[in-house]
Amino acid sequence: MTREEYLPNLDQKRLGVWIIGALGDVATTSMVGAAAIARGLRGTTGLVSELEEIRKLPLTPLSGFVFGGHDVRTGNPWETALRLENELRCFGMPLLEQIQDSLEEIAPRIRPGIIQGASGLMQSMLSHDVASRQESVEQAVERVRKDLRDFAEQEDLESIVVIHLTSTEPSRPWNPSFDSLSQLRQAISSNDQTIPASVLYAFAAFEESASFVNFTPSLGSSIPALQELAKEKAVCHAGKDGKTGETLVRTMLAPMFVARNLHVLSWSGFNVLGNRDGKILSDPSANDAKTSGKDAVLRSILGSHIDDSLTRIDYVPSLKDWKTAWDLIHFEGFLGTKMTLQFTWQGADSALAAPLILDLARLVQAGRDAGRVGMLSELACFFKDPMGWNENSFPVQVAKFEEFARELGTELAAKAGPQ
Amino acid sequence: MTREEYLPNLDQKRLGVWIIGALGDVATTSMVGAAAIARGLRGTTGLVSELEEIRKLPLTPLSGFVFGGHDVRTGNPWETALRLENELRCFGMPLLEQIQDSLEEIAPRIRPGIIQGASGLMQSMLSHDVASRQESVEQAVERVRKDLRDFAEQEDLESIVVIHLTSTEPSRPWNPSFDSLSQLRQAISSNDQTIPASVLYAFAAFEESASFVNFTPSLGSSIPALQELAKEKAVCHAGKDGKTGETLVRTMLAPMFVARNLHVLSWSGFNVLGNRDGKILSDPSANDAKTSGKDAVLRSILGSHIDDSLTRIDYVPSLKDWKTAWDLIHFEGFLGTKMTLQFTWQGADSALAAPLILDLARLVQAGRDAGRVGMLSELACFFKDPMGWNENSFPVQVAKFEEFARELGTELAAKAGPQ
Amino acid sequence: MTREEYLPNLDQKRLGVWIIGALGDVATTSMVGAAAIARGLRGTTGLVSELEEIRKLPLTPLSGFVFGGHDVRTGNPWETALRLENELRCFGMPLLEQIQDSLEEIAPRIRPGIIQGASGLMQSMLSHDVASRQESVEQAVERVRKDLRDFAEQEDLESIVVIHLTSTEPSRPWNPSFDSLSQLRQAISSNDQTIPASVLYAFAAFEESASFVNFTPSLGSSIPALQELAKEKAVCHAGKDGKTGETLVRTMLAPMFVARNLHVLSWSGFNVLGNRDGKILSDPSANDAKTSGKDAVLRSILGSHIDDSLTRIDYVPSLKDWKTAWDLIHFEGFLGTKMTLQFTWQGADSALAAPLILDLARLVQAGRDAGRVGMLSELACFFKDPMGWNENSFPVQVAKFEEFARELGTELAAKAGPQ
Amino acid sequence: MTREEYLPNLDQKRLGVWIIGALGDVATTSMVGAAAIARGLRGTTGLVSELEEIRKLPLTPLSGFVFGGHDVRTGNPWETALRLENELRCFGMPLLEQIQDSLEEIAPRIRPGIIQGASGLMQSMLSHDVASRQESVEQAVERVRKDLRDFAEQEDLESIVVIHLTSTEPSRPWNPSFDSLSQLRQAISSNDQTIPASVLYAFAAFEESASFVNFTPSLGSSIPALQELAKEKAVCHAGKDGKTGETLVRTMLAPMFVARNLHVLSWSGFNVLGNRDGKILSDPSANDAKTSGKDAVLRSILGSHIDDSLTRIDYVPSLKDWKTAWDLIHFEGFLGTKMTLQFTWQGADSALAAPLILDLARLVQAGRDAGRVGMLSELACFFKDPMGWNENSFPVQVAKFEEFARELGTELAAKAGPQ
Repeated sequence: MTREEYLPNLDQKRLGVWIIGALGDVATTSMVGAAAIARGLRGTTGLVSELEEIRKLPLTPLSGFVFGGHDVRTGNPWETALRLENELRCFGMPLLEQIQDSLEEIAPRIRPGIIQGASGLMQSMLSHDVASRQESVEQAVERVRKDLRDFAEQEDLESIVVIHLTSTEPSRPWNPSFDSLSQLRQAISSNDQTIPASVLYAFAAFEESASFVNFTPSLGSSIPALQELAKEKAVCHAGKDGKTGETLVRTMLAPMFVARNLHVLSWSGFNVLGNRDGKILSDPSANDAKTSGKDAVLRSILGSHIDDSLTRIDYVPSLKDWKTAWDLIHFEGFLGTKMTLQFTWQGADSALAAPLILDLARLVQAGRDAGRVGMLSELACFFKDPMGWNENSFPVQVAKFEEFARELGTELAAKAGPQ
Repeated sequence: MTREEYLPNLDQKRLGVWIIGALGDVATTSMVGAAAIARGLRGTTGLVSELEEIRKLPLTPLSGFVFGGHDVRTGNPWETALRLENELRCFGMPLLEQIQDSLEEIAPRIRPGIIQGASGLMQSMLSHDVASRQESVEQAVERVRKDLRDFAEQEDLESIVVIHLTSTEPSRPWNPSFDSLSQLRQAISSNDQTIPASVLYAFAAFEESASFVNFTPSLGSSIPALQELAKEKAVCHAGKDGKTGETLVRTMLAPMFVARNLHVLSWSGFNVLGNRDGKILSDPSANDAKTSGKDAVLRSILGSHIDDSLTRIDYVPSLKDWKTAWDLIHFEGFLGTKMTLQFTWQGADSALAAPLILDLARLVQAGRDAGRVGMLSELACFFKDPMGWNENSFPVQVAKFEEFARELGTELAAKAGPQ
Repeated sequence: MTREEYLPNLDQKRLGVWIIGALGDVATTSMVGAAAIARGLRGTTGLVSELEEIRKLPLTPLSGFVFGGHDVRTGNPWETALRLENELRCFGMPLLEQIQDSLEEIAPRIRPGIIQGASGLMQSMLSHDVASRQESVEQAVERVRKDLRDFAEQEDLESIVVIHLTSTEPSRPWNPSFDSLSQLRQAISSNDQTIPASVLYAFAAFEESASFVNFTPSLGSSIPALQELAKEKAVCHAGKDGKTGETLVRTMLAPMFVARNLHVLSWSGFNVLGNRDGKILSDPSANDAKTSGKDAVLRSILGSHIDDSLTRIDYVPSLKDWKTAWDLIHFEGFLGTKMTLQFTWQGADSALAAPLILDLARLVQAGRDAGRVGMLSELACFFKDPMGWNENSFPVQVAKFEEFARELGTELAAKAGPQ
Repeated sequence: MTREEYLPNLDQKRLGVWIIGALGDVATTSMVGAAAIARGLRGTTGLVSELEEIRKLPLTPLSGFVFGGHDVRTGNPWETALRLENELRCFGMPLLEQIQDSLEEIAPRIRPGIIQGASGLMQSMLSHDVASRQESVEQAVERVRKDLRDFAEQEDLESIVVIHLTSTEPSRPWNPSFDSLSQLRQAISSNDQTIPASVLYAFAAFEESASFVNFTPSLGSSIPALQELAKEKAVCHAGKDGKTGETLVRTMLAPMFVARNLHVLSWSGFNVLGNRDGKILSDPSANDAKTSGKDAVLRSILGSHIDDSLTRIDYVPSLKDWKTAWDLIHFEGFLGTKMTLQFTWQGADSALAAPLILDLARLVQAGRDAGRVGMLSELACFFKDPMGWNENSFPVQVAKFEEFARELGTELAAKAGPQ
């Protein structure tokens, strides 16, 4: 049965993609890319969902993507795209001009974000409107929910995937209300200002029966309370922390040392980047949250095969979106011989993350179409800190993902039934 | 059932390991390592056969390894070990002194090698004795067979694994006699001097019912004629071209680009090394054989995900055994964004290859113990150009090898029977 | 005395800059740059002649540059600029549009080049017109001379600097006619087709009293015969082989090893590039000419402080104008301790070379204004193979150049006389 | 006049070299090296004082070096040398055994150090004896002075050079007593415990008419009070902070960007090392002192040619003495084209620093022999933070040093007088 046969009206399929951080570089690049590819102006390189084995699934076509979202900044996607082009010459003006209308039509669907739990540095970067807003936690949640309802109604959408794509939140002590849904509801109604925005967004999404993808290291939907709610509402979610650069390479390389019984004496990694994400990470608490995660990943793969690891992220404005990472792997082989492997990664952060946003929206929606509920742990290969599956080896994650795609194909074909 | 239970007399097990190129750096390092580990002077880092899941198998203990071999040079393992230590300080004199007796007892088991098909450069590096020997192809084969029989008798060995570990032979046009065993036999008896030594060694090994491991890019047992003979004699063989450095990293990294649908525009790799292997590779015909293989590996994994590749190997004497490789991967991501990944590998060639020699001897013997016959394609992860399985992705190879080890465990336990 | 005082009509100064290879990437980039800077659209970064101490000299303003030249390709600067922008996004379309008129007015001043001594590969890349032209050596020289005369007349130019900027010519045996001017004249009249184009261009330039800058490794004006002619005609010349990338870094770093009495065991360098220059260098004879020069430079600085060196240049089309070089310096320090320094250079070839073209045109003209005659060996810091001074240490060359600039200032001020 | 003529009894010359931090890796390596070279067991690679132009000076032969020193650890040079050999295989046991007597005879000349101003971390690493000592500042100074007097008497030394080679002291607010000698004397007698040990050592050295070399970033003799004392006592001093690795390469490369009018957008450097020095630098205050110095050096050379710089030093124990640094230089060339240069430095810290200790002892003594007094600013090329000359360009420093050596030759020849 071909793709067209088991989902014959695929081309009319539409999907609401609501991005938290909709004016960020990654969000904008994914909007530009969706429009450019949908119109045949660019190829599908970088999209996992366009790999031969995955594109057999009845995934929403990029032409069916309807974007909207929240942001704490003022602005609009077209302006952001122009700024990116000006800074990085990443799209080419001729391309941008051809898709200007697509970007401009998103502008009215960008709503002011919420800022619970933001760091001081982040707050200092906010637009005046957002920073001065006085609303209770409950009001904030209600506002977000209403924005989602309006989006669905105005655009006549059956399904919405909410993608969390804001800058890293500072790490904070565990809030006991995260442990169960009832406690979380109570904390919200008692205006507990320590609940971070990422949790509130996920809560709001689930309440509105939207799927949720957490592309950031922030808590989002990972807490028990929200896992409970996702099941209750029969929605899917996936996360967390998109795996795009140094960690992608690390989780690819680390299993090699295990397979050859080599002993990593130390794995040191230094990241420099110059975009807004980098600026926020120059705040020590956000930085700690990020680097400790990166270290944990290595240890989870290498286990007793590693002694020591170190990760640093520094803000170097001139690099803008070009995240450069240098890793020095000092390892011991046969008879204690010490050797090294170094790598230098020079990647455009937005170009690496943006296609995964489109992939995840499609795949989470496909999971839902197939009747899956709760965490989609099979999507681990997309994330630095996969929810629901403590496996960080990229090759192992990829094998699981390929199996998942095959299963999904079977399930969706079964649902589509005899035509 | 534990290891001890299903093969209770494991500690008395002995295995003849006959190395072609027995006075080379890799051979010597594997002899030093086997002795050092058997006596508990060094740990097992670098030995795949000592990974938790593999060491459950009833593999020959290193204390049961009996070494011997052929070489075209004069000398002995103890002298080679001293030279290596002097050049590279790779073992430490205190260690060497503790195992001096083990190395010295190997000396009488080193026999003069054969040189059919060697390049002019290689011939110029031979000891006078070997170079001046006048013998027909048939005589050469008979001599090798007799050496193997003597080895088995004098050391009272049930099984021998022959490991081919000489410098790369120059590439030559296909010899039609390779196509079937009868033709090969005839070519040998008609003194066809173009049959390369690696083929003759494999032929001799099989005739003496020894297993054969080809750790070099030379033809060895890969030709149809010898596949036929291996089956006839019910022996196992594996190869070819040990995967130890740049290609190991390449075959680990390349699948990452496929999994993320990234397009490799060009993959350029430059190797510099200063050991005898490097000197032989400064001969253009040997170099071509080696680099074209390295390029083919990339293409086989990346398929339509790569446009262009380039590999160079240069002889830089000062580096001695330290093979340094720099790879520049120029790739395209979302919306045609061009990015790069570079890596620099600084590895001690002998320390990387030597443990794999020990692993392969153990594993090929275990395959034979389990009743396997012919090519052990499941050992692909050890080789740059795996025989019998056209799969170069290291993660995929490793998954297959792990499965093989599990199956072997079951088969060997079944053979051991109820105790 | 200020710049304005001793050359009061500086702003009206005009200089003919005649580029051999006028449709190449470097030539085009220098034309774009001159126009952009003259109009204040871009800053002067990369121009040595705009350093604080150099810009005190009465150099021709960029607004006074009048470009023309020869090329063996058909086309025009505006088209080349568009192609470069399209391939590399190196200028930005808004900039190009603002200077379109400047580029377009150069088009009629581009004349068909001559191809004596070109390699087979280069010939295969020629435009049909040029390749099929049948003219004697003397006719070729006459044609070039006429083009220069026409340029001077039509543009009303007092002075012309000819810049040689074609792809590397293959190395050939020394032609005895190079030894004296009379012999060269005779070889030209006897139609000796082995005289390479670079020599003929330099000959024609000197005959027309134009200065000559050789930015390529080709012979150009370096032969005794042309040194003689330059003196006879009282013109200046400088060369050869612009120092822009790997060699710049090498000649900066190498003196450090000498100053610290460190011993370089081996210096290995690998260059990959993808522009037309790279394609021509994939021809072995051009490649040899280039790499042997690069090795000689290292030896000339390091003397007994180096054992071994190796340089490779490979054509990797995907990199286009981005020349990437990796150098591995293996060196020995105190007590024989072996250490390494590696560097990776990622430079845009045209952006590195183009400003030096403008610098050299200005400085050679200033030398002439000051009454200098013959080789300007003080400009060695611009070249890989400096004419007239066997010094390759970049720091030493720079110190000499700074002294030269001070002297030139004094001489020019004296010429300008009391105001 | 030859070296022998103007200092005929050179071979009998003896020099007391008193090292503060005498049990450190660098001190031990310099002792091993001096003995090995004096006995002809190793060559002179790495010794600046053995360069052709410098060795013409009547410098003390290494056989005339008499070592002694202070340390806050217990132990002796022979033990330290064995530990280094064991950890790094840096000398080779055969060499060590041949010079064992030379190292052992130094042991009785190692005295307990003083610890004023040490950081908490450093204090925690002290030997019990030293840490528990209760002495006033004045008593500490007197003790050090007595040790120096005893050294001179017992070894019958005319001259002593004190070399400060301890781990970096934490940075502290400026102590007003540093401004003049009388104030410093008063602060010492009033037991001001905030005066750091490096200052007290330099004070004691000068009081005993010994020269002083500060190889560390600590204050040492750099303060006005001690400049005054040095002049009063007519002794020489030099410093500070030996330039051995990343900063050496940086100060070599940075002038290249200036000479080509390239604009450094950001220069990011990451150092990892695993020796005691690295451990002390894991203390933030010591780290800040070190990294801010490294940044200042770049800015002093690049001036307006740099926007941004960043330096990090991290402790990675597995690397031991192998200091590895990765620098990423992001720069802008013609027309705003952005390019990068990366380098990776893998150096053995002790092997880099040790020969400079020997050089500096010889050169400072030669300065004194020639009648120089006070700061020897001409030795700037040896230091990251040169005293008395605000010039950080390595090429410029080297040119000055070469001129200094020539002048010293003339002065010493004049002193030696007509023979």
